[in-house]
Amino acid sequence: MSDYLTKQLSTPITLQCGATLDDVTVAYECFGKLNEAKDNAIMICHALTGDSHVTESVEAPKEGWWNDMVGPGKHIDTNKFYVICSNVLGSCKGSMGPGTINQKTSQKYGLSFPVITVKDIVSVQYQLCIELGIPSLYAVVGPSMGGMQALEWAISYSKYCKRCVVIASSSSLSPQALAFGMVGRNAIISDRSFNEGNYDEEKPKQGLAIARMIGHITYLSKKSITDKFGRKLQEKKEYNYELDSDFQIESYLHYQGDKFVESFDANSYLYLSKALSYFDLSKEYGSLKKAFEKISASMLFISISSDWLYPTEQSKEMARTCMNMNKKVTFCEVESDYGHDSFLIEVDKFGEVIHSFIEREL
Amino acid sequence: MSDYLTKQLSTPITLQCGATLDDVTVAYECFGKLNEAKDNAIMICHALTGDSHVTESVEAPKEGWWNDMVGPGKHIDTNKFYVICSNVLGSCKGSMGPGTINQKTSQKYGLSFPVITVKDIVSVQYQLCIELGIPSLYAVVGPSMGGMQALEWAISYSKYCKRCVVIASSSSLSPQALAFGMVGRNAIISDRSFNEGNYDEEKPKQGLAIARMIGHITYLSKKSITDKFGRKLQEKKEYNYELDSDFQIESYLHYQGDKFVESFDANSYLYLSKALSYFDLSKEYGSLKKAFEKISASMLFISISSDWLYPTEQSKEMARTCMNMNKKVTFCEVESDYGHDSFLIEVDKFGEVIHSFIEREL
Repeated sequence: MSDYLTKQLSTPITLQCGATLDDVTVAYECFGKLNEAKDNAIMICHALTGDSHVTESVEAPKEGWWNDMVGPGKHIDTNKFYVICSNVLGSCKGSMGPGTINQKTSQKYGLSFPVITVKDIVSVQYQLCIELGIPSLYAVVGPSMGGMQALEWAISYSKYCKRCVVIASSSSLSPQALAFGMVGRNAIISDRSFNEGNYDEEKPKQGLAIARMIGHITYLSKKSITDKFGRKLQEKKEYNYELDSDFQIESYLHYQGDKFVESFDANSYLYLSKALSYFDLSKEYGSLKKAFEKISASMLFISISSDWLYPTEQSKEMARTCMNMNKKVTFCEVESDYGHDSFLIEVDKFGEVIHSFIEREL
Repeated sequence: MSDYLTKQLSTPITLQCGATLDDVTVAYECFGKLNEAKDNAIMICHALTGDSHVTESVEAPKEGWWNDMVGPGKHIDTNKFYVICSNVLGSCKGSMGPGTINQKTSQKYGLSFPVITVKDIVSVQYQLCIELGIPSLYAVVGPSMGGMQALEWAISYSKYCKRCVVIASSSSLSPQALAFGMVGRNAIISDRSFNEGNYDEEKPKQGLAIARMIGHITYLSKKSITDKFGRKLQEKKEYNYELDSDFQIESYLHYQGDKFVESFDANSYLYLSKALSYFDLSKEYGSLKKAFEKISASMLFISISSDWLYPTEQSKEMARTCMNMNKKVTFCEVESDYGHDSFLIEVDKFGEVIHSFIEREL
């Protein structure tokens, strides 16, 4: 049995590519209670490979991906707030995606699934909120790709969204991050088991593992890889003089790659990685300033000192733009050595900033 | 017809792994003339995927990989110096490697080729010099993996080597660089055409292209990718909304990957990447200080300001160690935005430093 609820949206979703998706199913979980005024809902948006299970609950006691952040008495306090987290469109964790059966063909969509964007993902989240009877969001909070969703919320649903927390994210991937993403997608597509997305029993595990390993390296800081693994060998003190793995960092990455392919779908990875690469507020609106003109939410940008994939400068640029436009904005760089993944590791450092931001009056 | 000469070494080479290679063939090229005193020879060591064709000559007019550095009247002046460049052991550019036919089996070595190290590569170079009748080297010069070879020369053949120029290199790969290298090797090994190294007509092109693309990204600085490509699209101004490439950086990397697989052998890439990962002077000698104790050459370390794969700090550490031991040492950080590849792009910046170093009296 799955931990999440599912909702089939009552209206079709028109995508940025022009296609329309009927019968969109969304997997979601809720924590805490919606108050009578219905003004305490917080939407949490997950990163590339996340899911709706942001934290443990009585019904679903398994640890969530942000367990120390969200819960009763935690930084985002579910005694006070009604937290919603939904699996993004295109993913494989319960929401509609390329692994969904297309009712018209009785086959999985595979690569016939339309190319989706962060904006499309947020359209689905908005429709979910409406159908859950939520008239506005107290806050939207997201790290990494979740931060892009939070930005899109603040822009496209500006009246609906009171506070917006963007963590370790940017208004568009840097060209270097684009390049790494492209190589990862290419590894999947060129895996012979990929079969143009029509794999079944035999999955493109090798390609997906490579994509994950590349991603994983970019999520870690140079210092954190060095501190954790350095050049330590696996067991022996001497080299094997074989082409196999010798170093601990090698077996660690293998382990991460292998673990990932058991829990994530290659087609979903392709679609979400593509959505990441397409996200570009300046391109979409003409400039960052024009994109931000619509924002009425109070904004919090948090960057990570050692994050080289989504460097601080990108968050600063967004905060600066808001400031120049007299938007309500707060910026904070969290000092952490763990690179992009810091928000999953040193949760309290982020939690304290988020807590004081969301608890303060507007 | 090939541009290079070949020499079959008259003695077997005993490798660090314990194996012995008989009948080692070395591809090499010479530029300029050995003077009567035989004291004007400069050995140039190439990087991971390089070859012996460091520059053009009358006999081989094709442009070399360091054409602006080496030649008559150039920074390393072949009117004055006798320049030797040999293809490294394990490569596929004329020297013995996994693509060589094993005389005992009449088959290509493939993965039965022993795992080699930078020290083994230099053993072969030394034997070549001896057999060419060169009693000592005026200088040894190498960028990137060539810098590791230059270091090995200065340590293992200290009396033979008067000057040593180490460019954009280190005494061991950083754990992050190790990790990227491992993912590249893994992409090759997991390509179904790899067939445990026994490929023939059908080569593991996809895997090798991925390894190259990963490498290529790490050779460029963030700024150079941004300046050259940014987030520019290929032709149209709008996204394709397909899973194919949209961005110029994507087609560029594809092109680089495809071009590379036409000219380089996957097994050689594996062996040389492994040799890079094994190079670790502190491990081999107990500490960097102990490794450097034997050095009698005058040392020049050049780093690149925007090189994140072999960062300046690594060169500084080596220079500092030499300085603390009262070795003759010069250190220079070249300001360049092109990342690790700068030594191939802004050649004059490096050439000026190398020229004044090698032309000055000891």
